[in-house]
Amino acid sequence: MTKPTKTSGSNARPGARLPKGFRDTSPDELRETSRMLATIRQVFESYGFEPLETPAIEYTDALGKFLPDQDRPNEGVFSFQDEDEQWLSLRYDLTAPLARYVAENFDRLPKPFRRYAVGPVWRNEKPGPGRFRQFTQFDADTVGTDNIAADAEICMLAADTMEALGIKRGDYVIKVNNRKVLDGVMDSIGLAGEGNAAKRLAVLRAIDKFDRLGVDGVRLLLGPGRKDESGDFTRGAGLSNGAIDQILVMFDLSTISKTAFDTRISEYPIEVRQRVAVVARENGLVDGVLAGVYQVVAKSSLGLEGLAELRAIWELVSAAGYNDSRIRIDSSVVRGLEYYTGPVFEAEITTEVKNEEGQTVRFGSVGGGGRYDGLVERFTGQKVPATGFSIGVSRLQAALAAINKDKPAAADGPVVVLVMDKAELPRFQKMAQSLRQAGIRAEMYLGTAGMKAQMKYADKRGAPCVVIQGGDERAKGEVQIKDLIEGAKASATIKDSKEWREGRPAQISVPEADLVAAVRDLLARHKP
Amino acid sequence: MTKPTKTSGSNARPGARLPKGFRDTSPDELRETSRMLATIRQVFESYGFEPLETPAIEYTDALGKFLPDQDRPNEGVFSFQDEDEQWLSLRYDLTAPLARYVAENFDRLPKPFRRYAVGPVWRNEKPGPGRFRQFTQFDADTVGTDNIAADAEICMLAADTMEALGIKRGDYVIKVNNRKVLDGVMDSIGLAGEGNAAKRLAVLRAIDKFDRLGVDGVRLLLGPGRKDESGDFTRGAGLSNGAIDQILVMFDLSTISKTAFDTRISEYPIEVRQRVAVVARENGLVDGVLAGVYQVVAKSSLGLEGLAELRAIWELVSAAGYNDSRIRIDSSVVRGLEYYTGPVFEAEITTEVKNEEGQTVRFGSVGGGGRYDGLVERFTGQKVPATGFSIGVSRLQAALAAINKDKPAAADGPVVVLVMDKAELPRFQKMAQSLRQAGIRAEMYLGTAGMKAQMKYADKRGAPCVVIQGGDERAKGEVQIKDLIEGAKASATIKDSKEWREGRPAQISVPEADLVAAVRDLLARHKP
Repeated sequence: MTKPTKTSGSNARPGARLPKGFRDTSPDELRETSRMLATIRQVFESYGFEPLETPAIEYTDALGKFLPDQDRPNEGVFSFQDEDEQWLSLRYDLTAPLARYVAENFDRLPKPFRRYAVGPVWRNEKPGPGRFRQFTQFDADTVGTDNIAADAEICMLAADTMEALGIKRGDYVIKVNNRKVLDGVMDSIGLAGEGNAAKRLAVLRAIDKFDRLGVDGVRLLLGPGRKDESGDFTRGAGLSNGAIDQILVMFDLSTISKTAFDTRISEYPIEVRQRVAVVARENGLVDGVLAGVYQVVAKSSLGLEGLAELRAIWELVSAAGYNDSRIRIDSSVVRGLEYYTGPVFEAEITTEVKNEEGQTVRFGSVGGGGRYDGLVERFTGQKVPATGFSIGVSRLQAALAAINKDKPAAADGPVVVLVMDKAELPRFQKMAQSLRQAGIRAEMYLGTAGMKAQMKYADKRGAPCVVIQGGDERAKGEVQIKDLIEGAKASATIKDSKEWREGRPAQISVPEADLVAAVRDLLARHKP
Repeated sequence: MTKPTKTSGSNARPGARLPKGFRDTSPDELRETSRMLATIRQVFESYGFEPLETPAIEYTDALGKFLPDQDRPNEGVFSFQDEDEQWLSLRYDLTAPLARYVAENFDRLPKPFRRYAVGPVWRNEKPGPGRFRQFTQFDADTVGTDNIAADAEICMLAADTMEALGIKRGDYVIKVNNRKVLDGVMDSIGLAGEGNAAKRLAVLRAIDKFDRLGVDGVRLLLGPGRKDESGDFTRGAGLSNGAIDQILVMFDLSTISKTAFDTRISEYPIEVRQRVAVVARENGLVDGVLAGVYQVVAKSSLGLEGLAELRAIWELVSAAGYNDSRIRIDSSVVRGLEYYTGPVFEAEITTEVKNEEGQTVRFGSVGGGGRYDGLVERFTGQKVPATGFSIGVSRLQAALAAINKDKPAAADGPVVVLVMDKAELPRFQKMAQSLRQAGIRAEMYLGTAGMKAQMKYADKRGAPCVVIQGGDERAKGEVQIKDLIEGAKASATIKDSKEWREGRPAQISVPEADLVAAVRDLLARHKP
């Protein structure tokens, strides 16, 4: 391993600063995160997913080239060499380490293997606003089955997770699409083959913007190109109007009858019909989106296979009652990752928020995933189908904050026992301890400052109240409890401890033996 | 950033293996860890500590040279350069990032600042059995006060944490010592000054082995040296018998009266007496260890200061009742880290376990800490006193496993709903879902295998029972519930599904509507 060079003399002081693109996380945010992760964990466990933790560091070659930004494979990761000069990298997601783990432990794992994982990942990319080089992901994956029920389960898991976090039905939606359908669309409009790869990418990027730009914007991006409000021009895919119409019909909620479907399917090779028959079986094309998709992909066997998978997922989630507003088939879901091979999912928060320009927009994606077949095969040569879902933890937390922005924050600082006389430290410490033993967060002031500074400290700590016992109170066997929430206004005007003693705003006096009960009453009064 | 070189052709498969010194963590262990961390977090929060999370990566110069192994400063960390060619490192502990954070945010922090942190740290050191390159620490620190009550609080916090984790009083002890006392010992036996640094280190290393080698072993290490059972010789510190006796008297539980203490203290300079008087005040030297220490350090003002601090801690923990078996003053606690400047703590599990050689030994240390004054000063030049405690999470978890080794493990796998007919997937999925909604972990089998393989799968998952509904049961509106715990023996002899159907060991049949209630009953019967 290369040794860091000394950049300055040994007496120079280093700067106390974080590297670019990294951040510290505050107590309030962490406490929210911790609550959120516990809830997600509980839902994932209830579905039979088991926790797995892999280390932050993997061999670079084991991580492979599955970075989301497919234009820059093998870049974007933090790498260094070990003592044997082998390259190591910090993981950039939780899926690549899962693939390594499954390949390494394949024989002894129960199959299918359901695992969840939560932890930081690192990207060596240009940081920007809200774009950090370390962030947390929470993943669930089912490895070792091509059963479409595994995909349906992931969708329901995602919906249950949103609701367990307190996001109301209707304020989120789990959107499902299928990569085979998207490939079928390409087939249908004559974009198959290696030579059309760039054009296909342009089409996928255009479709991906459906939510933001609507039919008209996408039409421009599929055709000649589009100029945005700032005047910037994005080149289009250059499709013919006929091809564009075919794609856009997917977004029309047109329907096709079961009879029409049966007639059209009969024109396809027997293996396509069997596959479609097995998963789609006897159900009518009741859903408009599916019918619209069908009109486009009807001439592509891959597209029909994808459609059949979508129908099978829809049937399973409908049987469980999730076909209300919770799960929706949405042809515009693309998902960037190159490795998806079948169903793709996206969890979207539909609550409206203000964006940076002050416009009202839907909050948008907080997670997504899909089916991938190639990750384990890289190691073993053996095809191991898998499907999964990944939550962007801070993104979801931001969504929760936006949804709950009008709820009052709880004053969850500790009760602070002031130190009025250093000789009596053990006495004050005992008070703090008796509160803690009753399940109340409490601390004794540990600094060396006077009364006024101690009150300021308690304010800064978000303390709901302070406990005070001076010499007079001690003589009477009493303690003072000052309610900082009630007394917030009054305390702003108090200048010294003499005035304080005379005024005693929002302050009660109780026998020392009643300290715990009195504090408990006070906290109960302030419960939001 | 240097780019990884390609080590093989693009068609070669990478090996699926972990880098040396890293490990994956299994579901059972992780679930235990998660429970343990939640308990620790609750205790730390009750004391008013606030969570803080800093990133894994810091500027190398901000981490400094505070690695535990003082012989190799600046080695032992994983480092790499950013795009500006500045050196970055993975943090090797949680204290150095705390110092950076405090220095960076000093003005806006409440002071004293109590924070806790939990997370992985990395050491680029030679791995060995039980010695990994990534492990988790759980730290609590109080920054910005030299109040000895902060140290006493840390000791009580450590004791409360042990008990909250279910470790019985008497099975653990929080040991306290003071670096100033150790330095005072050195002064007293004439080992002050730069020239004696190597000798002082040898003495500290000998004292550190008191627990393992006893008085006789330490005597040899302080003197000529010691040959161990294997014949290996460790060179001693080469002290005179008189000096050795002085040190060893610390470990005799001799006592000294308050009057004698007062007489001796009067011989010291006024500033020493004042400091001793302030913190030690009117209390008699009731503790034998303190008296023993006094006999050695009585001629060193630094030693006396340390002794006074120990007495003040003892007084505070005694007032809170922790002077039973929970907290103990122990002159043999050294703690390796160079940066400690005052009190040092060690949490020890006293439960006996077998070591690698089959000998019965005490489990030993699961965490430790102490007071340090220099860490923030490095950045700002301003002295910021601090004290803290760090728990080695996997070490503590190993201790808990040793203590609880006779407790039966809970069968906490999910209930598995078997898939007897793929056409009925939605039906089986609904059963799994109804169990989950009732708060029971449940999953539908997602593979493609037959009955026998599904049963094996359920066993591998640790399922307490499986739910079965074939065509016959469906016709009757019933489900079968097979108790896998009861039926473990019987199922070993069953060879095919025909025999299964006839035998039905540990299996009950209930109306489909009673599924949840029947599973709940079964789980209640098996609760440990």
